[in-house]
Amino acid sequence: MAEEKPRQFVGSVEFKKGLEGAITNESAISYVDGANGKLIYRGYSIDDLCAGGGGYEETAYLLLNGNLPTQAELDLFNADLALRRSIPQEAKDLIVQIANKCHPMSTLRTAVSLLGCLNPREFEVTVENDYDIALTLTAQFPTLVAAIQRARRGEFLIEPDVTKGLSEDFLRMMTGETPDARTVEVMDMALIIHAEHGMNASTFSSMVTNSSLTDFYSSIVAGIGSLKGPLHGGANEATLRTFQEIGDPATTEDWFAAAKEKKVKVMGFGHRVYKAYDPRARLFDPIAREFAERAGTSHLYEIAKKLEALVVADLGGKGIFPNVDFFSGIIYDAMGIDTDMFTPIFAVPRIAGWSARILEYLPENRLFRPRAVYIGDLESQYTPIAERG
Amino acid sequence: MAEEKPRQFVGSVEFKKGLEGAITNESAISYVDGANGKLIYRGYSIDDLCAGGGGYEETAYLLLNGNLPTQAELDLFNADLALRRSIPQEAKDLIVQIANKCHPMSTLRTAVSLLGCLNPREFEVTVENDYDIALTLTAQFPTLVAAIQRARRGEFLIEPDVTKGLSEDFLRMMTGETPDARTVEVMDMALIIHAEHGMNASTFSSMVTNSSLTDFYSSIVAGIGSLKGPLHGGANEATLRTFQEIGDPATTEDWFAAAKEKKVKVMGFGHRVYKAYDPRARLFDPIAREFAERAGTSHLYEIAKKLEALVVADLGGKGIFPNVDFFSGIIYDAMGIDTDMFTPIFAVPRIAGWSARILEYLPENRLFRPRAVYIGDLESQYTPIAERG
Repeated sequence: MAEEKPRQFVGSVEFKKGLEGAITNESAISYVDGANGKLIYRGYSIDDLCAGGGGYEETAYLLLNGNLPTQAELDLFNADLALRRSIPQEAKDLIVQIANKCHPMSTLRTAVSLLGCLNPREFEVTVENDYDIALTLTAQFPTLVAAIQRARRGEFLIEPDVTKGLSEDFLRMMTGETPDARTVEVMDMALIIHAEHGMNASTFSSMVTNSSLTDFYSSIVAGIGSLKGPLHGGANEATLRTFQEIGDPATTEDWFAAAKEKKVKVMGFGHRVYKAYDPRARLFDPIAREFAERAGTSHLYEIAKKLEALVVADLGGKGIFPNVDFFSGIIYDAMGIDTDMFTPIFAVPRIAGWSARILEYLPENRLFRPRAVYIGDLESQYTPIAERG
Repeated sequence: MAEEKPRQFVGSVEFKKGLEGAITNESAISYVDGANGKLIYRGYSIDDLCAGGGGYEETAYLLLNGNLPTQAELDLFNADLALRRSIPQEAKDLIVQIANKCHPMSTLRTAVSLLGCLNPREFEVTVENDYDIALTLTAQFPTLVAAIQRARRGEFLIEPDVTKGLSEDFLRMMTGETPDARTVEVMDMALIIHAEHGMNASTFSSMVTNSSLTDFYSSIVAGIGSLKGPLHGGANEATLRTFQEIGDPATTEDWFAAAKEKKVKVMGFGHRVYKAYDPRARLFDPIAREFAERAGTSHLYEIAKKLEALVVADLGGKGIFPNVDFFSGIIYDAMGIDTDMFTPIFAVPRIAGWSARILEYLPENRLFRPRAVYIGDLESQYTPIAERG
């Protein structure tokens, strides 16, 4: 590198960072209508799905199969999922061994990777086998996450109960108690709302991984790793911690003024796609109030609403509104769930979205292989090591 | 979905499948000169690096740090890597537990995920900490892969020897024997050749995963999962199996005619970027001949050369030539390495490339968040389940 060379641009140099605006494929799974603040799964609005009474299982069926089930189809699907809910002893042992050593998402990542090792058909990459694994993991994720929550507290693990629905059994395996009907209803809604969201980072990560035609577990493990990050699933943790840091509704204005002064990013606001109010935040808002009241944490909800008013007054004109992470943390916290379990709970239904997208892309698969623009030297002179200064 | 609706195209619909032509970022790590069949790491051709005598460690240093080391810097780097080579008992136990149940890449994926769980600083996402993890994993990958190879055969694991170089110790830990100097030299070369290769699928997968600012282990685990696929790292296994299936050089023509007739893809040929001869195949070709002779497997090399002549006569005009996977399998096979260990051996040096790219992107990080074109329904009418036919 003796002389200064001009930077070498190879190929087109017109690009937006983060692949903004780049198109991966055509998809019929979900549509994020950012301009109008609507989220549509396979044609159906999440509002209808949340209100419809078919629960998270209906949404998982819809995402995976493309159509709403009849009652008979849903009954069969529910029974199938219930029977697939248990996890092998090796996975339980691993969770007990590591759950108190690391972030629950790292335990989940490792446990799902292990489940792949234990499945003798892991290597068979067909739509049929991947669909089979998708169903099994959709059923097992609540069991895994509940086991992680209990193991890290040093509590004994609770076996699945095939007579219960997925959301109810998830709460029961996590807390050890039978949840009330309203809590089950809200968990169901939370799972529906988080099941799928366009070409988000974890979905993209799992699709990129799967495009080498690797096994399905490898792709889901990549999705878990991606979802863990604070720019993605980790944001709901950070948002609740902000409310807790503010602590008192009366200090919200001062906190916000200081954050603005220090140019600290306020978590839980804005989204690459939504330029209107996030429909998921709109659904969660009244439930956050209700659950905060129930749990005696109304001050957190009050802080959230004050912060929302301040940020929207400041940035609403730029399309900055609360996103899904803004209210979900208050609800989970009110349910007695540990803050760092929020992202694993996000993962529980997102497996349905990851799976649907992977399965949709598989028959028309093409390896994702973009390019970087090389800006380094092209012809450096290699000097023998003894002559290097 | 009562009536047939026109497909809804939202946003631009001009795109190439597999993100072909899309640009991720500017990078100074490596340049794949597809038109001229050259591969350049940080300005230096892989030919110079292979011939230079600094070994794989020099290349890893170059990729991670951006410049060639002085002798003193390389000595320090080698000593540092040697000291980081051992793996914790928990990882050994896990490998022994699962290595004979699944593909070695699945074991590697799970073991690296576990290493993340065992690192109390896993969660600290800074260039300094990620660099530290990158060094540790670069040092540990040979130990992990060697342990997997031995555990799946039911052999006892061999501890690292800090007095040995990385390639020598890797071979020693894998086979239990002190390798001859030429084998070490060739393994060094193989590691250099496989260390980095532009925005390939596993690198891209690890960068996409890391862009949520998740921990470094999650991103490397994603890279391992991607590399496992037959459209990526898995291709060298498939290529050797082709030669073994042909079995006799005299039957190569008939085999190729039948493959053409049945439109079976012949493995080990062609590359998205190279339209000239793959420089890595050019380097490997004479070594494959040499090692096949040594091992008494010259028929495999003869088959390869016959197949090459047939395919190039047929498709060379379209830029289809042997790629890196075409000759590497013959070399590893001649070294006595199991066929399904080829991809893990590919992973051993690719950690350097993954790490260099992740570390380069981190300071300017932007979440990778492309879009899919939604082609589903937009306003399906939700029917209560009892009314569905």
